[in-house]
Amino acid sequence: MLNPADDQLAASLPEGVLRPVTPAYLDEPRGRYRGQAGLVAAPRSTDEVAAIVRACADARVGIVTRGGGTGLVGGQVMSDGPAPLVLSLERMTALRGIWPEENVLVAEAGMTLQAVRDAANGAGRLFPLSLASQGTAAIGGCLATNAGGVTALRYGTARALCLGIEAVLPDGSVVHDLKRLRKDNTGYDIRDLLIGAEGTLGIITAASLKLVVPPPNVGTAMLEVPGPDAALSLLALAEGHMAGGVTAFELIGGQGLAFLAETLPEIRQPLPNAQWSVLIEVGLPEGMSSDTALEGLLTEAMERGLVTDGVIAQSGQQAAGFWHLREHIPEANRRIGAVASHDISLPLSEIAGFIRDAGAALAARSDVRINCFGHLGDGNLHFNLFPAAGRNRAEYDDQRKDLSLMVHEMVVARGGSFSAEHGVGRLKVAELERWGDPARLAAMRAIKSALDPFGIMNPGAVLSPARG
Amino acid sequence: MLNPADDQLAASLPEGVLRPVTPAYLDEPRGRYRGQAGLVAAPRSTDEVAAIVRACADARVGIVTRGGGTGLVGGQVMSDGPAPLVLSLERMTALRGIWPEENVLVAEAGMTLQAVRDAANGAGRLFPLSLASQGTAAIGGCLATNAGGVTALRYGTARALCLGIEAVLPDGSVVHDLKRLRKDNTGYDIRDLLIGAEGTLGIITAASLKLVVPPPNVGTAMLEVPGPDAALSLLALAEGHMAGGVTAFELIGGQGLAFLAETLPEIRQPLPNAQWSVLIEVGLPEGMSSDTALEGLLTEAMERGLVTDGVIAQSGQQAAGFWHLREHIPEANRRIGAVASHDISLPLSEIAGFIRDAGAALAARSDVRINCFGHLGDGNLHFNLFPAAGRNRAEYDDQRKDLSLMVHEMVVARGGSFSAEHGVGRLKVAELERWGDPARLAAMRAIKSALDPFGIMNPGAVLSPARG
Repeated sequence: MLNPADDQLAASLPEGVLRPVTPAYLDEPRGRYRGQAGLVAAPRSTDEVAAIVRACADARVGIVTRGGGTGLVGGQVMSDGPAPLVLSLERMTALRGIWPEENVLVAEAGMTLQAVRDAANGAGRLFPLSLASQGTAAIGGCLATNAGGVTALRYGTARALCLGIEAVLPDGSVVHDLKRLRKDNTGYDIRDLLIGAEGTLGIITAASLKLVVPPPNVGTAMLEVPGPDAALSLLALAEGHMAGGVTAFELIGGQGLAFLAETLPEIRQPLPNAQWSVLIEVGLPEGMSSDTALEGLLTEAMERGLVTDGVIAQSGQQAAGFWHLREHIPEANRRIGAVASHDISLPLSEIAGFIRDAGAALAARSDVRINCFGHLGDGNLHFNLFPAAGRNRAEYDDQRKDLSLMVHEMVVARGGSFSAEHGVGRLKVAELERWGDPARLAAMRAIKSALDPFGIMNPGAVLSPARG
Repeated sequence: MLNPADDQLAASLPEGVLRPVTPAYLDEPRGRYRGQAGLVAAPRSTDEVAAIVRACADARVGIVTRGGGTGLVGGQVMSDGPAPLVLSLERMTALRGIWPEENVLVAEAGMTLQAVRDAANGAGRLFPLSLASQGTAAIGGCLATNAGGVTALRYGTARALCLGIEAVLPDGSVVHDLKRLRKDNTGYDIRDLLIGAEGTLGIITAASLKLVVPPPNVGTAMLEVPGPDAALSLLALAEGHMAGGVTAFELIGGQGLAFLAETLPEIRQPLPNAQWSVLIEVGLPEGMSSDTALEGLLTEAMERGLVTDGVIAQSGQQAAGFWHLREHIPEANRRIGAVASHDISLPLSEIAGFIRDAGAALAARSDVRINCFGHLGDGNLHFNLFPAAGRNRAEYDDQRKDLSLMVHEMVVARGGSFSAEHGVGRLKVAELERWGDPARLAAMRAIKSALDPFGIMNPGAVLSPARG
């Protein structure tokens, strides 16, 4: 049932874009927020997106844009204030074109990351962005949140993989900038401004994406390391050997393996007792055996005491098994039930000290178990806290806020970030206000006001609503 | 002699920052513009930059920021309107820190690109940005113009090599964002907005830069190719072999070799008669001979008819000689004297057609000689026009504008850019207004007004002064 204002707005939308307001448009994976919506609209074209935005601007109704809905910081759900229009990109899933000889693909924003990867693969190319949620995550959402994932070490985050965008601005105008160019220095970087703005400055409707030729030889190994500092020395050694060929370098803590064994015992574990291990993937040139390269690295690393045990995948299937393990750590975490999750990044040389000190500080305060894992090569850790064995997360409700504050304060003190790859969304607005650089925040607010004077684009995400 | 207004402004500046207004602060390499300045100030610190900006904001005096002064589009010289203050970064040349284990270096904006590269090199690392003017160009200017150069194919332009910035905004506030993080998704990308804004939104005073571990094996070759289309097929073949190991892929036209022979006969030419040649550099992993890799590539390329002759450098000295040749093409051009220069980019699959059609169209209109060369891997060509043998550039004064318009129109029609790596500056403001996407231009103007309401930052560069 629409309220009268929604009724009027509905009448001004393009024919046939409205959808029933179902719970699937209002959820988010961690269940922290329950969204609301006056209307749900699913446009079929950029022109329809523009028409919807113009109608919402006229009616001063907020717009929450929704791709795959896999974001982890509540950027896709608005639970407070006047009910917004949810703009779903589910019908804008076309592959607009692919130019394998240029290493370029143009996708509409609603295409899933997996579909983009499949399209590239079908043309003998690789779209390197890779996330556990790629089967559901939309490429538009990946760009709006500047998604990271496991290959950022080599190929960068989503931002680095985007050559150009088409986007609808808050006044309903359309930026046509789907260029297939590697270099284009013609004015301000509006593309990178919208990338990572989490739908608060406009709606990305399509993107020109950078593909790569897949490396001819790919090798994968799981290596047990004495600790995070050894893992970082191993990374430096690997980079020295591989000439930029290290595609992924994931740290896995022993607690994560224990959670996997407990909740997903069917997953094979090559190093089940490792307190710390690393999943490394390398992509190497023609004529260079990845086996030989990884064996050479392993030998030198063992001599230096950086690796204590290890398994080099002997088949694509075994390599996929290693990745299967890594990608199910978040699922095991969900089954255990986290007290608090932290998506942090640190300067590489601060990581080992942080893990040590934060562990000690938490142990002095609480009996939480720590599952620390993530994209070590990027300095990006998921530093998540879980109930002690036999207890449950509800028992920690009174500690949650303090523990998170403690973790974030230790991160910030070491020059790190409280949001490495998930974004700010609604979850970390207060953290951004607390720790964000004041001049940068003022510039953000000035830009938001200039481009979105009525504040209709994802209200309350990233920046709190304009004050006074 | 100062006018009274300058006198008042001078009195409000920090002690000891003023410098005599000498011609060196007012020139640009191509001699198209002659700048003016009411005052020249050379601050010693970010705080002094901020104080100068505040004083200029109060006095409504424009600021032209100057690094090495090597820009090619007049961004560093203001020749029209009220005399600005020239803010020279010549005294802010400190290396603030280097963390080789993190692959990070923090440099002040006045440090030359060469000094940054040397500092990285001294720590066993590589700062990959590389330009012919690197001995003079300041890193701040490289960032302000998002400089490209010969290694962008592998490592990206300046933007891709910057992790964070410190910058003074038009109100004199200082953005402190010199993070040493690979991932940090905490709000709008103010860094990338200032990068490429050519000093019109703020002044970058320092930057956190990304280093890489130098590839263990580097190989260089000059190869004669039948034409630009064969060169592109060769690039695709090389990328398929090298797993991202192609560092540079430069196209050199026969006219460029002829100009070199004429003006710089001491430069050794390995393939003096090639109509089209390519300079390729690869950086490969440990245990992989670059000789073997290049020979393998060469053999396959010759079988496919993509290469007709070639020389693989047998020493670092020989490789340096190839680069010496490439980097002196601009100097040879200067000695010949261009009628018009074009820094263009095209989708890779449009390049061969463009070179063919633009050559034919120009030949039908004029007797100019074309020197086409550049960063083929990035789709970035320098497509420069020269007088016919025996004539001089002045004889083409009446054709210059028409010929450039024709070239740019053909570029834009094929989805290309009229400024690939040099920027807009003052030279291409009209081109940006003509061909820039209207919605993107409107967003640029809105951002400029929001951040720089008095229009004091590099007035007249990138965007024409606000209308109405």
